[in-house]
Amino acid sequence: MAVYTDVASEDLSAFLAGYDIGDLLAYKGIAEGVENSNFFLHTSRGYFILTLYEKRVSAEDLPFFLGLMEHLAARGLNCPQPVKNKKGQMLGKVAGRPAAIVTFLDGMWIRRPHAAHCSAVGEALAKLHLAGADFKLRRVNALSLAGWTPLTDACAERADSVQPSLRQTIEDELAFLKKRWPRGLPEGVIHADLFPDNVFFLGSALSGLIDFYFACTDTLAYDVAICLNAWCFEPDHSYNVTKGKALLSGYMRVRPLSAEECDAMPVLARGAALRFLLTRLVDWLDVPLGALVKPKDPLEYFRKLRFHQSVESCRDYGIDA
Amino acid sequence: MAVYTDVASEDLSAFLAGYDIGDLLAYKGIAEGVENSNFFLHTSRGYFILTLYEKRVSAEDLPFFLGLMEHLAARGLNCPQPVKNKKGQMLGKVAGRPAAIVTFLDGMWIRRPHAAHCSAVGEALAKLHLAGADFKLRRVNALSLAGWTPLTDACAERADSVQPSLRQTIEDELAFLKKRWPRGLPEGVIHADLFPDNVFFLGSALSGLIDFYFACTDTLAYDVAICLNAWCFEPDHSYNVTKGKALLSGYMRVRPLSAEECDAMPVLARGAALRFLLTRLVDWLDVPLGALVKPKDPLEYFRKLRFHQSVESCRDYGIDA
Repeated sequence: MAVYTDVASEDLSAFLAGYDIGDLLAYKGIAEGVENSNFFLHTSRGYFILTLYEKRVSAEDLPFFLGLMEHLAARGLNCPQPVKNKKGQMLGKVAGRPAAIVTFLDGMWIRRPHAAHCSAVGEALAKLHLAGADFKLRRVNALSLAGWTPLTDACAERADSVQPSLRQTIEDELAFLKKRWPRGLPEGVIHADLFPDNVFFLGSALSGLIDFYFACTDTLAYDVAICLNAWCFEPDHSYNVTKGKALLSGYMRVRPLSAEECDAMPVLARGAALRFLLTRLVDWLDVPLGALVKPKDPLEYFRKLRFHQSVESCRDYGIDA
Repeated sequence: MAVYTDVASEDLSAFLAGYDIGDLLAYKGIAEGVENSNFFLHTSRGYFILTLYEKRVSAEDLPFFLGLMEHLAARGLNCPQPVKNKKGQMLGKVAGRPAAIVTFLDGMWIRRPHAAHCSAVGEALAKLHLAGADFKLRRVNALSLAGWTPLTDACAERADSVQPSLRQTIEDELAFLKKRWPRGLPEGVIHADLFPDNVFFLGSALSGLIDFYFACTDTLAYDVAICLNAWCFEPDHSYNVTKGKALLSGYMRVRPLSAEECDAMPVLARGAALRFLLTRLVDWLDVPLGALVKPKDPLEYFRKLRFHQSVESCRDYGIDA
C-alpha cells in the first residue's frame, strides 16, 4: 500500500490538458503497488489509472513496459492499455516523476484462489507468452540467476538473524542453481510477477492481467515456475497438487510444454523460490524498526524452496508427463 | 494515507448482496483518511465509497455521522449520501468492522487555495450550519474545552522535547481559555474539521464537503474559527487577511455573525489553534521512531496560536464590524 508522491489537482489538470481524455472530475491515491504511486482518475471521458514511477523503477525500462502493454492489448490480451497524449507519447511527467495514464480495468483479485482460478491463470499466462512472441523490444531479467549473487551478498551477513543457518541454505542453493540452471529453453516475454494481486477476475472468469513492471525477456517455463510458487501453495505453505495440475493443464491447453521444459520445472521452481526469498529478505532487513508498513515474510519462500528441493520430477507438480 | 483492513473480494461481494446497488466490478483501497479504511467501489449501478470504521471512531457515534450526512444531503448540501441496504439500514459489517457505503462525489481538493476558494468555503460552512439546524441527534464535542485538559496531561511531560517551553505555552493558554471561553453563543451542528482536504472543487466552484467524522453539536462560530486556522494562513504560517476577509464575508452572506460572535472570534481562534496543536502533538509523540508515515507538524499550530494571541479584535481577521 503506497502513494509516495502527492499530486496537486492544479498540476494534474495541467498535465491532463496534454491529453484528449476530457476534464478531470476526481482522483484518488490508490493504496496499491509498492514500487510506484498510483491514482484512480475520473474524467469527463471515463476512468483511468495514473502511475507515477518512483525510484525503484528505472526510467529507461519504461518504454519496454508501456510498449509491451500496448502490444499485448493490441493482440487481445486484457491488460491496462497506455493512453497516448496529443503528441502521441505514452510517457509524460507529473510532480517531477515520469508518469503514464492507462485504461481502468474492472475486476478483483482473489485472496483465496481455488483450482479453477489456477487453471484460468495458467491459460492466461500461456496466451501472454504467445502474444508476446513478436514483441520487438528486449529487457534482461535483472532478477534471474546473474542477479541472485549480488542479492545474496547484500543479505548474507544478516540472514541468520532471521532464521538460524538461513545464510548456508541460500549459499548452497545458489551454488546448486549456478550448476544446474537450464539453458536453451524457449525464451520470450515473461510477466515475472504474476501473483494473485496482479490477476483480475469478474465472477469466475479471468478479466485481466496488470502490473507489467517486472516483465522481461527470459525463459518462458520460468514464468510458469513463478506461478506455481505464487498460486499453488496453501496458507500453511504446503503444495496443493490439485491447483498445480490445474495451472499446468490450463497453460498446456494453450501452449504445450516440451519434455525439456517439464524436466527443468523443479530447478526453475527452486530458482523462483530463491528469487522471492532473496528480494523479500533484502526488504525485510532494510525496514527500520517500528515501521508501520510490514514487509512480506521471506520465510514463506524458504518453506517453498524446501518443498521444491524434495521434488523428484515434474510429476510431483501435477504434470501428466 | 491509510488502509488498515484488507477486504477480500469474496467477502465484499457477499456484503454487497445485501444492497440494491448491482454487482461488484472493481474496488481499490484509497490512500486517504487517517481514521478509517476507505475503498472506491465500481458496481454495475455506479460508483461508491465503502468506509470501514477503525478503532479511532466510536461505533456509537456512527448513527450521528451517517444520519447527519443523510439529513444534509436531503437539504441540498452536496455531501456523500449514505446508501441503505435492503433492510433500510445505513450501517453494516465487513471484515469484522462497522461499515457503510456512501455515494461517490466528484471533485478535487485544492492544495493551494486562493481567496475565491476561501469565500466559497465560508458560504458552504454557513449553509451547513443552516441545514443542520433541525437535525435531531446531538453529539458532544469531545475535542472542545473540556477535552483539552486530558490532552494537555497526555503530552505535557514530553512537550518540551518538541520545542523548549512548549509545555508552559500550552498550560498558560489552557488556563486563559478556561477563563475566557465564550458561553451562550448560537449552537448547532458543526463540521469541526473543514480543512482543504475535506472540501471538493470542480473548476472554481465548490462541489461538495466530505468527512463528517468529527461533526458534533457545538458553537457555530467555533467552526468558523477552525476554518480561519485551516484556510487563511500561508505556508510560512503568516495570516492572510485577504483570505480571512473572503472566508468571513462568504459565511456572512448566508448567515450573518452577531456582534457577540464577532467579538468572541479571537478567543475561539485561539481555542481552535490549541485543539489542533494538542491532537497533532499527541500523534507526533505517539509515532514510533523510524516510522514510514510522518504525522503532521504540531508546531504549525503553535505559530498560528501565537498569531491569534496577538490579535486585538475581530477586525484583524478581516471582519468589517
